[in-house]
Amino acid sequence: MKKVLILGAGRSAAALIDYMSQEGERNDWQVQVVDAAPDIIEQYERKYENVQASQLDVLDDNARENLLQSASLVISMLPARFHIHVAESCIKLKIHLLTASYVDEEVQQLEEQIKKQGLIFLYECGLDPGIDHMSAMQMIDNIRQKGGHVTSFQSFCGGLMAPGSDDNPWRYKFTWNPRNVVLAGKGGTAQYIYKGIYKNIPHHQLFKRLTMVEIPEYGDFESYPNRDSLKYRELYGLYKAETILRGTLRRPGFCSAWHAFVQLGLTDDSYQVRNVENMTYAEFTRSYLPYSKDDLLTNFSRYIGVDISSEVMQRIKWLGILDDKPIRLQKATPAQVMQQLLESRWQARQEDKDMIVMQHQIEYQIKDEHKKITSSLVSTGEIANLSGMAKTVGYPLGIAAKLILQDKIKERGLMIPIHQEIYAPVLEELKKMNIKFIDKEESLTPMSEGQFKS
Amino acid sequence: MKKVLILGAGRSAAALIDYMSQEGERNDWQVQVVDAAPDIIEQYERKYENVQASQLDVLDDNARENLLQSASLVISMLPARFHIHVAESCIKLKIHLLTASYVDEEVQQLEEQIKKQGLIFLYECGLDPGIDHMSAMQMIDNIRQKGGHVTSFQSFCGGLMAPGSDDNPWRYKFTWNPRNVVLAGKGGTAQYIYKGIYKNIPHHQLFKRLTMVEIPEYGDFESYPNRDSLKYRELYGLYKAETILRGTLRRPGFCSAWHAFVQLGLTDDSYQVRNVENMTYAEFTRSYLPYSKDDLLTNFSRYIGVDISSEVMQRIKWLGILDDKPIRLQKATPAQVMQQLLESRWQARQEDKDMIVMQHQIEYQIKDEHKKITSSLVSTGEIANLSGMAKTVGYPLGIAAKLILQDKIKERGLMIPIHQEIYAPVLEELKKMNIKFIDKEESLTPMSEGQFKS
Repeated sequence: MKKVLILGAGRSAAALIDYMSQEGERNDWQVQVVDAAPDIIEQYERKYENVQASQLDVLDDNARENLLQSASLVISMLPARFHIHVAESCIKLKIHLLTASYVDEEVQQLEEQIKKQGLIFLYECGLDPGIDHMSAMQMIDNIRQKGGHVTSFQSFCGGLMAPGSDDNPWRYKFTWNPRNVVLAGKGGTAQYIYKGIYKNIPHHQLFKRLTMVEIPEYGDFESYPNRDSLKYRELYGLYKAETILRGTLRRPGFCSAWHAFVQLGLTDDSYQVRNVENMTYAEFTRSYLPYSKDDLLTNFSRYIGVDISSEVMQRIKWLGILDDKPIRLQKATPAQVMQQLLESRWQARQEDKDMIVMQHQIEYQIKDEHKKITSSLVSTGEIANLSGMAKTVGYPLGIAAKLILQDKIKERGLMIPIHQEIYAPVLEELKKMNIKFIDKEESLTPMSEGQFKS
Repeated sequence: MKKVLILGAGRSAAALIDYMSQEGERNDWQVQVVDAAPDIIEQYERKYENVQASQLDVLDDNARENLLQSASLVISMLPARFHIHVAESCIKLKIHLLTASYVDEEVQQLEEQIKKQGLIFLYECGLDPGIDHMSAMQMIDNIRQKGGHVTSFQSFCGGLMAPGSDDNPWRYKFTWNPRNVVLAGKGGTAQYIYKGIYKNIPHHQLFKRLTMVEIPEYGDFESYPNRDSLKYRELYGLYKAETILRGTLRRPGFCSAWHAFVQLGLTDDSYQVRNVENMTYAEFTRSYLPYSKDDLLTNFSRYIGVDISSEVMQRIKWLGILDDKPIRLQKATPAQVMQQLLESRWQARQEDKDMIVMQHQIEYQIKDEHKKITSSLVSTGEIANLSGMAKTVGYPLGIAAKLILQDKIKERGLMIPIHQEIYAPVLEELKKMNIKFIDKEESLTPMSEGQFKS
C-alpha cells in the first residue's frame, strides 16, 4: 500500500490535504500529515477518516527518518529552510519529494544523487512558482509546435482580495507572510529586458515603475517588476525574446502609496529605530521627514510631492501612520514597526475571500505574422480554510503526487514542472476544478510592437 | 637620539614629512620614511638631507618589527586596514602610535594593553577626523568654562576645489579616493537629531536633505548629513543638545544632480551590469530609465522631474553620461562605470588648488541668554604637492608627534584629540601656519531657535 506523507499542515496545506484524502480513498493510498503543532494535526484527524496525523520535530533526524521510512512520496509544505534536511533523508531512503518552494543551491548540489537514485524531486510545483511555469510552458510549447517563436514574454501574478472583500482604500489585505510583503523588492535590483534593452531598477524606484494589466471581468491592476526576470530566458528557452518581464500584481493606487513609504525609508530592516519604545506612529513618521513648522500631513504630502487630498494621502492616513497612537514595541526596525501597523489594518476577516490573479502576455512570430496571446487566470477563495492561495498551491502538488504514484512521470532527477508529461495533465485536472486560464489571441500590426527604443 | 618613523609616503603625507624634517633638524630627531613604492621614497631622500627613506612591505612581520625597533614614535599614513598590524607591533615594542584614521573595533580591543604599556595611541588626528574634534572641543570647553551648556551642535566639512580651480559645472574635482566619493552615504541610514526629533534618512534620500552653509568670503555651500551624527553626543558630552548634525559640504547644485544618479541606481555597487562590455554610456543610462520613444535627454529629465534645460541636466550632460561613447569595461558594477566616467571628468589639473572647508555652528545657553558661535576654517592648497588636504591632515599629526616627543602629553592609552593638553597647542600652532578658524558670535532671540516641531 502506497503512502503519501505531507509535512507541514498550516493553512496553505488545507486544499492539498483535502485533495489527497479523496485520492487516497479512490486509489487505496495511505495519507499521513505531520506538523510541529498538535492542535493543527488533531483538526485534520477529526475531519478525515483516512488521514493519519502525528506530531514531528522535523529537525530531529531519527524521528524524521523513522517517519519517512514507510512513505512512497513526501510533499513538504514546510518553510523553505527545512527542505534540505527532508531532501537528504529522501535520497537516503529513496523517496520522491515534492514542494512548492524554489530550487535553491543546497538542493542543486544533490542533483546527481537524486538522479542516481532514480528519484523525482519536483520543486516549484505550487502557484508561483508552479502554475506560472506550467501554463507559460504550455503556451510556449504550443507556439513552437506551430513553428513560431516567442518575441515577448510578460507574466504577472498577485495574491489579492476577491471583489467584495477588497473593502479598504488599498484594496489589499494579508493573505501571505506579512513580513515578506513589507520587505517586497528588497532582495536587490530588479532586472528585466524590454524591447531589447536591459533594465535595472533599484528597490527605491520599484514601486513607480509600473505596468498596467487588465483582467477580463475583474478590471485593472498594476504591476511592479519582480527581482530577476532574466533567469526565465534559460528556464523557458526564450532566446529570441526581446522582452522578458515578470511582475507582481496589486490593485491600482497601491504602489504609488507604498512608494511613499519606501521613499521615506519606512521599510528598512537593517537597523533599530532609536527611542522607538517611547514613540507614537506620528513621531516615528516624523523621524523620516525634514524639520517643518507645518503639521505632519502637510509636511508628509509635500515631501513625497502629492496633494494633501490626493488618493495617495488618503491611503496613507487610513493606515494610521500619522496618528498619535503609541507603537508599544521595545526594539524594532522600521520594517517591524510597519509590519505591526499593517497587520492590524490589513487583517482579513473570517468571511473575507482571497483571489489569485495571473496573466501571461506572450507575443510571437510565425513567418510574417505577429500575434499576441493574453492568458488570464483568476481563482477566488471559497471558505476560510479553502482560500484561493491554498487551492492554487495545494492542488498542483496533489495532482503531481498522484501522477507520480500512478507511475505516469518518466523523467527522473531534480526538476520543475516545465515538462509536458507533468504540466499537461496537471493543467487539465485544474481546469476541471475551475482553476483555468482564459485565452485571448490577437494579430499585432507592426506599429503596435513599438519600433523606437529609448 | 629620538626617531620618528613615518609609514606611508603617498601624496597626503607630503606636508607631514616636510614638517617632521624641519622639527627633526631643530630638535635633533631622526626622521625615517618608509613606503612600499621605491620611486616615492627616493624623491624624499633627494629633497630632504635629514630624512632617511627605505622600502618596506608592512605585512612582513619580521621586516616591520626590525624597522620599528629603533623608533620612539610611529605615524601611520597607511590605508586603515594595515593599522592593526602596526598597532600590535607598537605595543610589543613599546612605541607611541599616531594616525588620522578612525578608532576601529580591532584597536579598541587593544585598549587595556596600550594603557598598561604606558603608551599613547593617538587616532583621528588629521583633518576630519582630527581638526574637527579639536576645534569643536575647544569651543565646547570654552562654553562650559563660562558656565554655559550647548543646546545645538552642527558641524560641516568638505574637501573641494579652491576658487579658480572649481571651473566645471559641478564645482568639484577629486581630491580624495574617487571610489569613496561614488559610494558616499551608502554605509547605512544617516541618523541625527534636530530640535529634539531623531531623524533617519535612507541613502536614496540623502542628497535632497540639504542644509545651506555660508562661509565668509567663500560664499554658499550645501551639506548632506553624515552617517551617524549621534555618536558625537557621547564623544563630546553633548547631553543637553537638542540638535546634533554633522554634514559633508559641496558647492550649491552638486547634490541635486548627484541625487539624480542615486535615484536611477547608478551608484549601486552590489551587482555586475549585464552586457556592460558592449555598452555605451548612453545605453548604460538608458538601462535605468523606463522605456520611452522620446530621446534620452527628454526621458531622463522627465524621470527625475526637472526641465531639460535645468542646471541639474546641464551638470548631468556635461559628465558625458548621455553620450554614445563606449564604456570599454569587461565587468563592472554601476558604481564602477560611474567611477571611470567621473575620474575622466573630475580629474584635477597639475595647477589646480584644492580647498578644505569646515564650519561649526554651536548654540548655547548661559543663564537666560541664548547665543550662537559660528566658527569657520578654509585652507587652500599651495603647490601640487602641498594640497589643503595634505596640510590639514599632516600638520596636526606632526604637531602632536612633536608634543609627545617633548613629553608634553600626560594622558596615556588609546585616545582621540579631545583633551585640552593636545588640542590647545595643536590649534595654536596651526593658527601660526594660517590654518585658523574665524569666529562669529551672535545673540539669539527666542524665536530664531524655532519653537515649533514637526
